[in-house]
Amino acid sequence: MSGTKASLKPFFEPKTVAIIGASRETRKPGHVILRNFLEREFRGKVYPVNPKTEEIAGLRCYASVKDLPDEIDLAVIATPAKAVVQVMQECAEKKTKAAVIISSGFGELGPDGKKREDEIREIAENIGIRVIGPNCIGIYDAYTGVDTLFLPRYRLARPTKGNISFTSQSGAFGVAMLDWAASLGVGISKFISYGNMVDVNEIDLLEYLKDDPTTKIVIMYLEQTADGRKLIDVVRQITPKKPVVAIKAGRTSEGARAASSHTGALAGSDLVYWGAFKQTGVVRAFDPEELMDFAIALGTQPPCMGNRIAIVTNGGGFGVMATDEIVRRKLRLAELSGTTKRYLHEKLPPYVSVENPVDLMGDSDAQRYATALDLTLKDPNVDGAVVIVLFQTPLLESGVVDTISEVATKYRKPITVCATGGDYVEIHRKMLERSYVPCYQTPERAARAMWALAFYGDYLKRLAEE
Amino acid sequence: MSGTKASLKPFFEPKTVAIIGASRETRKPGHVILRNFLEREFRGKVYPVNPKTEEIAGLRCYASVKDLPDEIDLAVIATPAKAVVQVMQECAEKKTKAAVIISSGFGELGPDGKKREDEIREIAENIGIRVIGPNCIGIYDAYTGVDTLFLPRYRLARPTKGNISFTSQSGAFGVAMLDWAASLGVGISKFISYGNMVDVNEIDLLEYLKDDPTTKIVIMYLEQTADGRKLIDVVRQITPKKPVVAIKAGRTSEGARAASSHTGALAGSDLVYWGAFKQTGVVRAFDPEELMDFAIALGTQPPCMGNRIAIVTNGGGFGVMATDEIVRRKLRLAELSGTTKRYLHEKLPPYVSVENPVDLMGDSDAQRYATALDLTLKDPNVDGAVVIVLFQTPLLESGVVDTISEVATKYRKPITVCATGGDYVEIHRKMLERSYVPCYQTPERAARAMWALAFYGDYLKRLAEE
Repeated sequence: MSGTKASLKPFFEPKTVAIIGASRETRKPGHVILRNFLEREFRGKVYPVNPKTEEIAGLRCYASVKDLPDEIDLAVIATPAKAVVQVMQECAEKKTKAAVIISSGFGELGPDGKKREDEIREIAENIGIRVIGPNCIGIYDAYTGVDTLFLPRYRLARPTKGNISFTSQSGAFGVAMLDWAASLGVGISKFISYGNMVDVNEIDLLEYLKDDPTTKIVIMYLEQTADGRKLIDVVRQITPKKPVVAIKAGRTSEGARAASSHTGALAGSDLVYWGAFKQTGVVRAFDPEELMDFAIALGTQPPCMGNRIAIVTNGGGFGVMATDEIVRRKLRLAELSGTTKRYLHEKLPPYVSVENPVDLMGDSDAQRYATALDLTLKDPNVDGAVVIVLFQTPLLESGVVDTISEVATKYRKPITVCATGGDYVEIHRKMLERSYVPCYQTPERAARAMWALAFYGDYLKRLAEE
Repeated sequence: MSGTKASLKPFFEPKTVAIIGASRETRKPGHVILRNFLEREFRGKVYPVNPKTEEIAGLRCYASVKDLPDEIDLAVIATPAKAVVQVMQECAEKKTKAAVIISSGFGELGPDGKKREDEIREIAENIGIRVIGPNCIGIYDAYTGVDTLFLPRYRLARPTKGNISFTSQSGAFGVAMLDWAASLGVGISKFISYGNMVDVNEIDLLEYLKDDPTTKIVIMYLEQTADGRKLIDVVRQITPKKPVVAIKAGRTSEGARAASSHTGALAGSDLVYWGAFKQTGVVRAFDPEELMDFAIALGTQPPCMGNRIAIVTNGGGFGVMATDEIVRRKLRLAELSGTTKRYLHEKLPPYVSVENPVDLMGDSDAQRYATALDLTLKDPNVDGAVVIVLFQTPLLESGVVDTISEVATKYRKPITVCATGGDYVEIHRKMLERSYVPCYQTPERAARAMWALAFYGDYLKRLAEE
């Protein structure tokens, strides 16, 4: 049915926006949202609507959508719940194309709220107006400036433009991750918190993101799905072109019970989701840290087209930890070719271990990394490399950052980096990430990110063989 | 045998220190170490020793230890490896009490180096001089200012004074963790990287830390042990008084192989270590992040004297994730008493879930947390609480930090906090940690930290029952 429905485009590229329930009080959602549209990227027209005031933030305020001098592409509704049905009727009369209902007080509160949701759904279906929400945070589009996040910028930083789009059933989870992404410098294309789903659900959103040109990777937070079969269908269309990373809360029966009391819906069996994810090439993250780590890796590195991983390190213990995690994730330590080992032996000091993990020792400089990485990634027995760089060691110049990003580009094989430490390391971690090389605080995280790249690579390989 | 050996005290509280191999070249270990002793806390006398120069950093430089006008408590040896045996002979003649040998080029390089180690061991045993190293980073004591870390401060930040002491077989692992601790504001009492162990090993160090008044918690990085039975014996003496957290690399057979090629020694079976850790109450960390997280939790919170955990959150999805991890770690969701639920219901808005996880909803303020946390921790069915605080939500005042730290003190039950996000959250995370409440980026990390507190609490309970 969603195939025949109107496009979601007005949500992301509206030319005219009405903020219904716009407010003069600075902490109210209707105020924060209005300011979001006025102060940032958004280039369309913005109309505040509120019958109780005549002017907000220097703009004339209208009593009703019906009074607006323009057609309205997108209505953002932030009124009290009891007013929403009437507002929706007025939006319908005005032939508004899309509405984001921020207001809470619906299905999540029980039967009365559920009845209101039914009325909204009926209006939406009759008129063909698309609805996101209610009880949601709505949309953030870094490219067009659509921003219904009603949390002030000093509390919730907005990420820069990027290639990751993110759908989240939970608003709280979504904004916490957005805020984290912003502080890491991870860019976002679109974020959508879709709340109670009277109309638009995760399946509609995935269908839209599938063809969205600024979306190169999709991440999603799920508690349950609107329709498992359709979800599988749409994901199967995306994953050959764009990686999808998903996190599903409610893995244990206790967690599933907590989830169903939280959303009022039944969380599906974890095994069913896991099976469906595997089958359709969805990379599963088990916690928010993995979700972030995997998104960064898949957004910057090519997929790993095999399971043979080289480890290059200047700290032996870290090499051991990376090995442990590589093996636990069912990847393999690459067996370096005789040629590679011979060259490594010739070009590196005699005390350097030329077995995998390649241990360059604590006195390594950037040149030693350049030699080892070049030889290792050139080796046909190696599909990808986990590189450990302890920046604390005295002879290691900052130029090692260029070394790593150069070699990553040269061989089109993926690299993930681990650099453990504090402020000095953080500077270099940012330098690496700006060179599109993902860099993590622990060897395990770097190894798991390589697993994500290999999981996706394996899926693409199996597709190609079919 | 180590019982009859001289104390390790001169390593940590020397009155006189000789830096042998002191250098005028700023990037050389012998220069950095000299400056460490001159520029910081250290209050004893410092003598540079180097036959090739007459003055370094304004101090007269001596040609040999034998020429020094004072008795020497601690010699720090940073000469080339081939000079070390003779230097040790001179230290022996001078009746130096302790030596840290930074120099590498010993057993880790093969038979020739091994022979040098044997010579050093013989000198040390004959004269009774205690030796840490060779091939190590040595010692950092935040209280006395002993600092043989030869990495400049701008690369390796030094942690402030604290109650955690840290022994590490791997120097690289040790300094990376120290640097990380410094950036997190986590304080350290003593750090010791002990390298090739010609004399002092992890067992000697644990024996010393057992009675060290500024050490309240011990963390250790192991690849293998000098003597499994003795290690168990000494740990068994510590854990009733001070928590011990350990990380052992080489969990998989591939990892163990990498470890043995790295250190030249056989890594023991992982299962044997795991069994020994469990039996002696050692909290096992599986990666550096857990090591850091558990150390912070055990260093600030009381042990959790049962497995019944309450979760209090303002984001439903995060409550579900915390539940999943609590259950996966074999803890239980506490069953709140009827009284608690009745009071929660009376005092909180009707839409707040008063089952565990207690979901205070996205419009929660600090007062709602105060009410919920007080009632929950007072409940005799609750042993500890994982508290999730999404600081992005608009009505939550910073004062929630005081609320949480107050209630943690009041009931003497442990609290771990999850606050996911970016810069604004980071400010509050630091506020919480300065109030001695551990705060983590993800719900899983907060739940696992609670597991560490419960593992240790369970060990103490079993000891008391014996």
